[in-house]
Amino acid sequence: MRTRAAVALEAGKPLEIMEVNLDGPKAGEVLIEIKATGICHTDEFTRSGADPEGLFPSILGHEGAGVVLEVGEGVTTLKPGDHVIPLYTPECRECHSCLSGKTNLCTSIRGTQGQGLMPDGTTRFSMLDGTPIYHYMGCSTFANHTVLPEIALAKVREDAPFDKICYIGCGVTTGIGAVINTAGVEIGSSAAVFGLGGIGLNVIQGLRMAGADTIIGVDLNDDKAEMAREFGMTHFVNPSKVDNVTEAIIEITKTDQDQFGGVDYSFDATGNVQVMRDALECSHRGWGVSVIIGVAPAGAEISTRPFQLVTGRVWKGTAFGGAKGRTDVPKFVDWYMDGKIEIDPMITHKLSLDEINEGFELMHQGKSIRAVVEFT
Amino acid sequence: MRTRAAVALEAGKPLEIMEVNLDGPKAGEVLIEIKATGICHTDEFTRSGADPEGLFPSILGHEGAGVVLEVGEGVTTLKPGDHVIPLYTPECRECHSCLSGKTNLCTSIRGTQGQGLMPDGTTRFSMLDGTPIYHYMGCSTFANHTVLPEIALAKVREDAPFDKICYIGCGVTTGIGAVINTAGVEIGSSAAVFGLGGIGLNVIQGLRMAGADTIIGVDLNDDKAEMAREFGMTHFVNPSKVDNVTEAIIEITKTDQDQFGGVDYSFDATGNVQVMRDALECSHRGWGVSVIIGVAPAGAEISTRPFQLVTGRVWKGTAFGGAKGRTDVPKFVDWYMDGKIEIDPMITHKLSLDEINEGFELMHQGKSIRAVVEFT
Repeated sequence: MRTRAAVALEAGKPLEIMEVNLDGPKAGEVLIEIKATGICHTDEFTRSGADPEGLFPSILGHEGAGVVLEVGEGVTTLKPGDHVIPLYTPECRECHSCLSGKTNLCTSIRGTQGQGLMPDGTTRFSMLDGTPIYHYMGCSTFANHTVLPEIALAKVREDAPFDKICYIGCGVTTGIGAVINTAGVEIGSSAAVFGLGGIGLNVIQGLRMAGADTIIGVDLNDDKAEMAREFGMTHFVNPSKVDNVTEAIIEITKTDQDQFGGVDYSFDATGNVQVMRDALECSHRGWGVSVIIGVAPAGAEISTRPFQLVTGRVWKGTAFGGAKGRTDVPKFVDWYMDGKIEIDPMITHKLSLDEINEGFELMHQGKSIRAVVEFT
Repeated sequence: MRTRAAVALEAGKPLEIMEVNLDGPKAGEVLIEIKATGICHTDEFTRSGADPEGLFPSILGHEGAGVVLEVGEGVTTLKPGDHVIPLYTPECRECHSCLSGKTNLCTSIRGTQGQGLMPDGTTRFSMLDGTPIYHYMGCSTFANHTVLPEIALAKVREDAPFDKICYIGCGVTTGIGAVINTAGVEIGSSAAVFGLGGIGLNVIQGLRMAGADTIIGVDLNDDKAEMAREFGMTHFVNPSKVDNVTEAIIEITKTDQDQFGGVDYSFDATGNVQVMRDALECSHRGWGVSVIIGVAPAGAEISTRPFQLVTGRVWKGTAFGGAKGRTDVPKFVDWYMDGKIEIDPMITHKLSLDEINEGFELMHQGKSIRAVVEFT
């Protein structure tokens, strides 16, 4: 069949909207009609050429929602008409990683996914001249139709709006999951969140859900504070307006009982390695846990004195918020429908596929939290 | 009173055995007769001048065992005749840190202890000319008699031999505690231990206690392998004899089910920051936990790509094996007396106080696991 897609032909160039060929689903695969897709910084990381593993031409996009049109041979858990969210972190429930129960990082199709291919080592997309087009993060949601493995699709309830729940495919789950799965924040905790963009705001609402008392947001842009307060932030620190950001955070958390200070939990949602260090070092001596969420530039390294760890701080990271996609994503959709989590205020812009490059512009200008492309 | 002590007069010089003045215990303090003390790398770190916070003149030593001679005003938990192990990490059970239940790093006397002083800001030791001599790690066990705060003494059973249980005051507890308190190793785990000295061997016996299946020891000196095997090591890697130490460890742990490999837990017992990185990076994608035990040179920093943490590895550290001294040290002594843990083979040399500098020599030459000074 043919479908319309935004194709990344070369690193650093705007996406091109065009007709492409899409082969039907092979064994274990599913054809999806994408209804809506968010535009995330990770898409931009690859589009811009900053991602050393970026492949071109490819169809980007990994934060979508849609409907099953057709299932390939052997697919048993999905049928045409099912509503689904594509998963860039699949959940096969059979590999050593899934069976460990200790990680969400399913490894069953990791090799081919990283090479922009379906599990059989080929692509389903091609240019009209027959040139293969690479898949992206196993999802390629910047296309009106796409093919994914059955294990990379979460089946969700049918009354949930596509233009909101697509955000659960990455940002919402990553932010909230970092709090509840990776950090395991307890009621009454203190926390600092570095970066108040699309991920940071979800960390903040995750902290509110988890019952944190003190939620300190950190961003260079004062304009980010207002929405963060609506999601639960209790204190704001602009690093450009204090002498030392870690000291400023530690001061907020000092009490008569606690002369040392420091947050129980900290989260980096910036991808900046110096910020990752600050996040670790503002966490509490003895038990502070710092979680890296952001994706750092190629080759960048984090550093600290080992004394920071020897005196009880723990440095962790998270991918897709530690969520097991097929198991946890339907729960996140329920939480949204039940009003436990908010998404609507974060979807600041709606675009058509033809306007997708404007979405990247809005992100660059810091004007959007999330721009969502709707297919009509 | 007067007592005999090995005094560190200046950085880099051998210790000098001499008579010193020792004031009696003030309120909340206890006078101890030291019966035996181990010589640890941390003493050498300070003696040599490498420790930027080292103070001179001081009486080093922090791995001792002895008997209470006299208690100061208000001391309620100890009486003359009690057998005790000095604690460089005290346990006041009243500070914010102790009450948190989340750390062993009691902070009640941290400030003065770091300055070589008793909690009231003075020293009990002085030269015969009256010059104050600093305390060391709050212990100063290289003296026949010493004074410690009540909260820095673990009361232990009276049938346990001083020349063995002194080692529980640091090395044994640090190594075994890193496994059972900090890492929380489960039965059937795989682990790598970098550095097979006095700490590393105790990590290995901790792993055996915890029921680990695969215990990989790593050391540049092949001669260290034999004793490590006796303590439970199942595989040995000499980094100078393989192309890449992390790859060598990962290969050992690969199975038909697990094509990725990597250890569930790793421990640095070297203090070398490059080794700390290797330890992290040989731990398993998705769930590996790496624990820093060693003390790094002043100013040295650990580094890695954040990708290592984002893909599920956890970087931690431990001090005194996460043990709460007054609570846990008596249990370790019981375990030794019950034969659950071994100490005797690790006490490779016995010395008198006059021979203490030979103990440092033996350590430099790699000839001793632990040299113990006995007071007679």
